Amino acid sequence: MTEKQEKKDPWIKNVVPEMAPPSLNDNTADMDRLVKAIGKVLPGSRIVMDYPMIRDMASTLRRCAYRVEAVLFEDGDRWHLADVLPVAEGHGLFGIAVDLGSSTLVVRLLNLITGETFDESSFHNPQIDIGADILTRIHFAATDGGLQKLQSLVRNRLNLEITRFCDRHHIESERIAGMAVAGNTTMTHLFLGLDPHWICREPYIPIINSPGLIRANDLGLSINPGAPVLLFPNVGSYFGGDLIAGILASGMAREKAVSLLVDVGTNAEVVIGNNEWLMACAGAAGPALEGGVANMGMMAGPGVIDKVTYDPETETFRIRTIDGLQPVGICGSGFIDLVAQLYLYGMIDLRGKFVSGKCSNRLVEVDGIRELVVVPAGKSANGKPLTLAQTDVDGLIRSKAAMFTILVTLTNTVNMPLREIHRFFVAGTFGSFIDPRSAITLGMIPDLPLDRYVSLGNTSLEGATLGLLSREAARDISTIRDRVTYLELNVNQEFMNLFSAAKFIPHTERSLFPSVKPYGMVDNLRTLKLESNDRPLAR
Amino acid sequence: MTEKQEKKDPWIKNVVPEMAPPSLNDNTADMDRLVKAIGKVLPGSRIVMDYPMIRDMASTLRRCAYRVEAVLFEDGDRWHLADVLPVAEGHGLFGIAVDLGSSTLVVRLLNLITGETFDESSFHNPQIDIGADILTRIHFAATDGGLQKLQSLVRNRLNLEITRFCDRHHIESERIAGMAVAGNTTMTHLFLGLDPHWICREPYIPIINSPGLIRANDLGLSINPGAPVLLFPNVGSYFGGDLIAGILASGMAREKAVSLLVDVGTNAEVVIGNNEWLMACAGAAGPALEGGVANMGMMAGPGVIDKVTYDPETETFRIRTIDGLQPVGICGSGFIDLVAQLYLYGMIDLRGKFVSGKCSNRLVEVDGIRELVVVPAGKSANGKPLTLAQTDVDGLIRSKAAMFTILVTLTNTVNMPLREIHRFFVAGTFGSFIDPRSAITLGMIPDLPLDRYVSLGNTSLEGATLGLLSREAARDISTIRDRVTYLELNVNQEFMNLFSAAKFIPHTERSLFPSVKPYGMVDNLRTLKLESNDRPLAR
Repeated sequence: MTEKQEKKDPWIKNVVPEMAPPSLNDNTADMDRLVKAIGKVLPGSRIVMDYPMIRDMASTLRRCAYRVEAVLFEDGDRWHLADVLPVAEGHGLFGIAVDLGSSTLVVRLLNLITGETFDESSFHNPQIDIGADILTRIHFAATDGGLQKLQSLVRNRLNLEITRFCDRHHIESERIAGMAVAGNTTMTHLFLGLDPHWICREPYIPIINSPGLIRANDLGLSINPGAPVLLFPNVGSYFGGDLIAGILASGMAREKAVSLLVDVGTNAEVVIGNNEWLMACAGAAGPALEGGVANMGMMAGPGVIDKVTYDPETETFRIRTIDGLQPVGICGSGFIDLVAQLYLYGMIDLRGKFVSGKCSNRLVEVDGIRELVVVPAGKSANGKPLTLAQTDVDGLIRSKAAMFTILVTLTNTVNMPLREIHRFFVAGTFGSFIDPRSAITLGMIPDLPLDRYVSLGNTSLEGATLGLLSREAARDISTIRDRVTYLELNVNQEFMNLFSAAKFIPHTERSLFPSVKPYGMVDNLRTLKLESNDRPLAR
Repeated sequence: MTEKQEKKDPWIKNVVPEMAPPSLNDNTADMDRLVKAIGKVLPGSRIVMDYPMIRDMASTLRRCAYRVEAVLFEDGDRWHLADVLPVAEGHGLFGIAVDLGSSTLVVRLLNLITGETFDESSFHNPQIDIGADILTRIHFAATDGGLQKLQSLVRNRLNLEITRFCDRHHIESERIAGMAVAGNTTMTHLFLGLDPHWICREPYIPIINSPGLIRANDLGLSINPGAPVLLFPNVGSYFGGDLIAGILASGMAREKAVSLLVDVGTNAEVVIGNNEWLMACAGAAGPALEGGVANMGMMAGPGVIDKVTYDPETETFRIRTIDGLQPVGICGSGFIDLVAQLYLYGMIDLRGKFVSGKCSNRLVEVDGIRELVVVPAGKSANGKPLTLAQTDVDGLIRSKAAMFTILVTLTNTVNMPLREIHRFFVAGTFGSFIDPRSAITLGMIPDLPLDRYVSLGNTSLEGATLGLLSREAARDISTIRDRVTYLELNVNQEFMNLFSAAKFIPHTERSLFPSVKPYGMVDNLRTLKLESNDRPLAR
């Protein structure tokens, strides 16, 4: 997380215009007087205002004897007057950036003047009570009052968080003068109260891709009613505003060199391009990469194994758990480390199958499926062994093969060899914690020099933050959206051939992964270090 | 009334954009598809839409299988999508022009496509129940709920009229896609629910002069909720949108030649100027000109005397009444005719005093005040004589002197002799019915050739109509507003000298009125014709 954004030219601002009170010699009307005075601070701009707010503004203007703080935001060629507030030096102006995830929402309180992050909070999307997966929610939206219910669940929870921010930092909610929200297409529709019915039905059409700026009041948000809410636009049903935010956060659309951005969630979403073009595609590659392990897989949390190495000398696994507790399970990054180590030390073969001779007494068989004991019963938190099943490894092989195939398909389409990728950005939790070395070992991502990999963390939140703070970034959003060409993945014979070739560790074509050398083949095998603050991909 | 406006380039329009339904090959989002298709009809324009309407639009779009009528209006550099309607060939698109008078509202239903007037209706301003004069209403607005009450009185009555129009012409209210409203500054404030408190208190400041376009929904009007409502802007507290509408209707702001516009209501409002400059002033001159006669004055209506001549041969008054009924009273135009005739035939002197010898047995004295019997008891509708008091004539003299003084002051300020005025426009009921010859005889208006006088009728309504139908006119509105310089009338010694000189019939300086020649001095005295459809100033 970037604690403080560089101060940028803002598109939401407050000004204290110099106004003389009315007199017989200058009987300009109240609001015209204000607009004229603002015009001196923002020369050459058209200042406009929405009627429903004029009444309150006018009374504030008089109550404050024409010494007020005008809150404005830019939209195209005009500045909208959002509100008129009593001048309160040092009270600041704030904004809220939202990562509108289908599982988790992350909300950030920003100082719009300094760019500082004041607070941040994350919580489960309350729509999970309706349905954990997005399809259930889309179906629920079609029921009587369903859409409104889904919308209000998120809105109310968000408002609660905003109220907490305000209480904690002694901020008046009217001083929150803007919000930026990045979510996928369905989440964005639900946030706006728009029926996502057609998003999941052929030909998969959203109601709207570019909702633009919407007043907080229209969305029932507990911030200044006249504040703009910037919704990140979608490219289509399967390429949402969260990814536009990701592209924005990566900066790839401003560089001449071609970069690649991967975001792995339920789907793997990949974008390649530069300051002239962007091509994107998405495909199912996810579940196995996000703790999709039958017996011991879980989301990151206390006691969860997030890093694994194998010590060939002592023939033991060395594990790191979050908070150093007794192990309770394993998360995605630990899983990838583990399977990479199994491969490097010959405990699985290049098809990912357990090699009995190498696994020795670690292998057990449960209901006819072979399982490898990673943590024996006596050393786990609940007294039961933590095991990895053959089916778990098979699942990971399919996922990593799908991921690599998507990368190859996309780069083939634009005729750009993977090795020429300038930067390989990895977004999301996945990217923040996995060790790229392990992912390369498995052939999930290409065998590039490690310094080309950049982990961006929560790019939805970062993109939303940038979009809220910077005029240039806000303008980039629609440029990016318009520049993206979405490549529909055709699961045809060519794709299947690529996929089959990628189902080996690291790949049928070994020359694609020259750096991957199993134990015994190498003398300079990198030893993974286990340090408590180790964040291998940290920016 | 102009029955059909020339067809103009409209700023409110409906288009039926060509849209292919979505397919796997073209999965543009619904609203983006619509915007793209509209862009082909309105190339180079930015198409924007308000969030609260998107939901309904999107469902209409699907229900109508992408064959819809998009209703749009222009605001600056962008076209706003007001609504999306099912295509209904020949159902038309309508607008409402409103003269928002403090006494009377006139509402006109227009076909926005052809420019035709479909219907028109006028009714008393229901705020009269609160107070006949505007000051009472301003005070009432300050009471608890008063402002809302005043606003809803007009809104509800207007909505009733619109509903009647819709019923009568089988129009769906959603097909009313725009409204233009011209009223004075206070009426405009009350219409918008803005407190007019400071309009009547030093230094006389409105809340807003240029409210711009407001959505019908925000004002609770029973037309399409997304339709724009164009409020004519004010110049200040004493120069309202009704006069901007008048200037627009006259066309004077487009001509190189300098014209003058007079609107007589409670105040006399006068504007002089051309396509480069406009100067305006206002002053009290009205009451006596609008049926302000103690005994028999009344508003125009059945049986009211609206034209008077004197036949020196038979020594009788020849009167015309509205609908040819038995006389019940006299209105402003009849009053001015009457006093002019009295002067021309020597029954009053140049100070306006009754000349006993000439009035013979027509003069009576009531409570010490001399009165002239115009219609004897036996010939009036109620069996009582209709009389004109000396005080009535004195009042008219003061009013006409004030009017002429205002005209002289204004033309002196811009250094333009009255005789060089290219056109003398007269607005309002006053201008529609008075005989300019009689007004010149009294020295109320300058002694110009009669063909320079143009009566414009209800210029608020005409201006509102133009503003609603024509893009060019709509743009002219703010140009006109910004061009007007308001001249504050100083009732100083110079003004009083001018006023005193104007208190004679026609004027102390006879050479200013060469055409005015009392009976006996002339041989070619113009005989007023009494024909039923006589409208001496009709355009």
